[in-house]
Amino acid sequence: MQTLIVNLSDRSYPIHVGAEIIERAGQLMQQAGLLGKVAIVTNPTVAQLYLDPIHGALSQAGFETTPVLLPDGEEHKTLKSLSTIYDRLVAERFERKSCVLALGGGVIGDLAGFAAATYLRGIPYVQVPTTLLAQVDSSVGGKTGVNHDAGKNLIGAFYQPKLVLIDVAALRSLPRRELVAGLAEVIKYGVICDRYLFELLEQNLEKILALDRELLTQIIVRSCENKVRVVEADEREDDYRAVLNFGHTIGHALEAATGYRQFLHGEAVGIGMVKAAALSVQQGFCDPKSFERITRLIKKAGLPTEFPPGMSVSSLVQGMEVDKKATAGQIKFVISEGLGKTRFHWLAPGEILDALGG
Amino acid sequence: MQTLIVNLSDRSYPIHVGAEIIERAGQLMQQAGLLGKVAIVTNPTVAQLYLDPIHGALSQAGFETTPVLLPDGEEHKTLKSLSTIYDRLVAERFERKSCVLALGGGVIGDLAGFAAATYLRGIPYVQVPTTLLAQVDSSVGGKTGVNHDAGKNLIGAFYQPKLVLIDVAALRSLPRRELVAGLAEVIKYGVICDRYLFELLEQNLEKILALDRELLTQIIVRSCENKVRVVEADEREDDYRAVLNFGHTIGHALEAATGYRQFLHGEAVGIGMVKAAALSVQQGFCDPKSFERITRLIKKAGLPTEFPPGMSVSSLVQGMEVDKKATAGQIKFVISEGLGKTRFHWLAPGEILDALGG
Repeated sequence: MQTLIVNLSDRSYPIHVGAEIIERAGQLMQQAGLLGKVAIVTNPTVAQLYLDPIHGALSQAGFETTPVLLPDGEEHKTLKSLSTIYDRLVAERFERKSCVLALGGGVIGDLAGFAAATYLRGIPYVQVPTTLLAQVDSSVGGKTGVNHDAGKNLIGAFYQPKLVLIDVAALRSLPRRELVAGLAEVIKYGVICDRYLFELLEQNLEKILALDRELLTQIIVRSCENKVRVVEADEREDDYRAVLNFGHTIGHALEAATGYRQFLHGEAVGIGMVKAAALSVQQGFCDPKSFERITRLIKKAGLPTEFPPGMSVSSLVQGMEVDKKATAGQIKFVISEGLGKTRFHWLAPGEILDALGG
Repeated sequence: MQTLIVNLSDRSYPIHVGAEIIERAGQLMQQAGLLGKVAIVTNPTVAQLYLDPIHGALSQAGFETTPVLLPDGEEHKTLKSLSTIYDRLVAERFERKSCVLALGGGVIGDLAGFAAATYLRGIPYVQVPTTLLAQVDSSVGGKTGVNHDAGKNLIGAFYQPKLVLIDVAALRSLPRRELVAGLAEVIKYGVICDRYLFELLEQNLEKILALDRELLTQIIVRSCENKVRVVEADEREDDYRAVLNFGHTIGHALEAATGYRQFLHGEAVGIGMVKAAALSVQQGFCDPKSFERITRLIKKAGLPTEFPPGMSVSSLVQGMEVDKKATAGQIKFVISEGLGKTRFHWLAPGEILDALGG
């Protein structure tokens, strides 16, 4: 087991990464000073696999658990699901020291985290992410929230967990397509700030896809370390934290344009990173060799690298303008300056359209 | 105009108190670095009186305002009203630098503040409290939130405004009963930590009730200063901040027992303070002379001091146990140690019942 500390003064917390962490959840939560009631927020798919083991581990350590099952899928990341959690916490008389545990992927984490952030104005919160995407991305950074009909994550809070438990053994049950989508975010860390990680991925991709525990632990810890560094520097996304959006401005627009049905988030980010790297070359910031290596790794991982045929690039660029990251008609783009280096560059929609060949 | 700074590191903000502040709202918001769109959250009663003046002041300073009218009353402090605000912010394309302004009493402040805390994970928030209660209590401290069917304020967040504008002239339009209810909280500050304020009230009660602007400004500033001191010491209500609950443990139980219909919050707190002071004498912490002066001032202000006839004191004490401030069957009581001094004392429900003569 490897442990990483996220330093955010009185909101600091540890992330434990390794195999069979779920079995030790009770003991690790005790060590973190938690006690009493725990609401395990999860969905039926994940519950079938991990609810019994985590319930067992928590009971043995003296915790009193209550499962809260929510329907699966991004379309249920709503105020309505949030109300379901609140109603259960109220019915079970949760107090300020009681605890919410998120067992599942990013949707569960965002919902459970926002419920914890706002029940009695904030109660302790533990994350047990079971997808690679949630393990390397949403379990660090404190973003919680729900969607609004008009857009994703429009309602939410920054709220830090007390503890994150990342069990790499849980990835055995993850569908291959989701594992690959999660890898897109790992590759992103390599591109924006960690050349060593990028090369580790280039050299060990097959073993990683075969779920080698040592390598999984290594790439997850490095990914979290990278994200932690960024978040520590800019917890509330005032400025620098936006480097984490490399590939995401195009990726988000692509997800929206295809109604969130055609691509998983990581797949859209895969295409977004290739296009952002191409734009970086075209703007004179990135060398063609780095662009080639980025594209090759993304392709080799099994991620898509091209827009779907017939896609209107101009409507895609219009989509970026309504994204919350656009200000006064200019879009803040995260540009690659070669492997492991990045910078911001403000672009007008027309310039992006030109670069993407729309 | 008097100005008070609430020091909470990067969440610090100024409170301006005086007459005709609403007319200067635009200029004061500009000075605070705000700009762009402003959603004015209010209710029809307050809108009729102050929406035009505040809209005028803001427009003149270049702000683009949108009124969001919510139905009046505590029963509308719900997730549903919150959704109404979100929908409008989304429809008007509010961005991270856009701003929510609460124009009204505590219900409006709590709702608008929670919407601001959670829209795009937090956008700037300005409070323009128009009741005495909101001016001396809810405009300092960062508590925001909504009610749940099972209890008040069960869902919420700690979130600080960027600016608080307290216009004492707005109290002219406040019903006398609400003015008096607000005075209960002013008296509370005198009892728990400010003997000078207590004596100022004793000597000037008639002038205050006649809305003398100088005296109103003085007692509001002192009340806010007292609350600021407590909040600065304990922003997230871990411990010491609970002194602000003097008279409130009994008051809340009384409000709940009478279905929130018979008493205004301040009226229930009036009775609660008299009973808490009696309990303080009975437990040997408070001298009988201070108890008499507390009771006399509360009565002279026009607040009730006795439980309603036929009230079951034992069911009232049971109500305290389910209140969120109860832990492990013991109730943390705020005790008076004479004028301007206070302490905590843990009491079993039976002891409280004995003291209240149930």
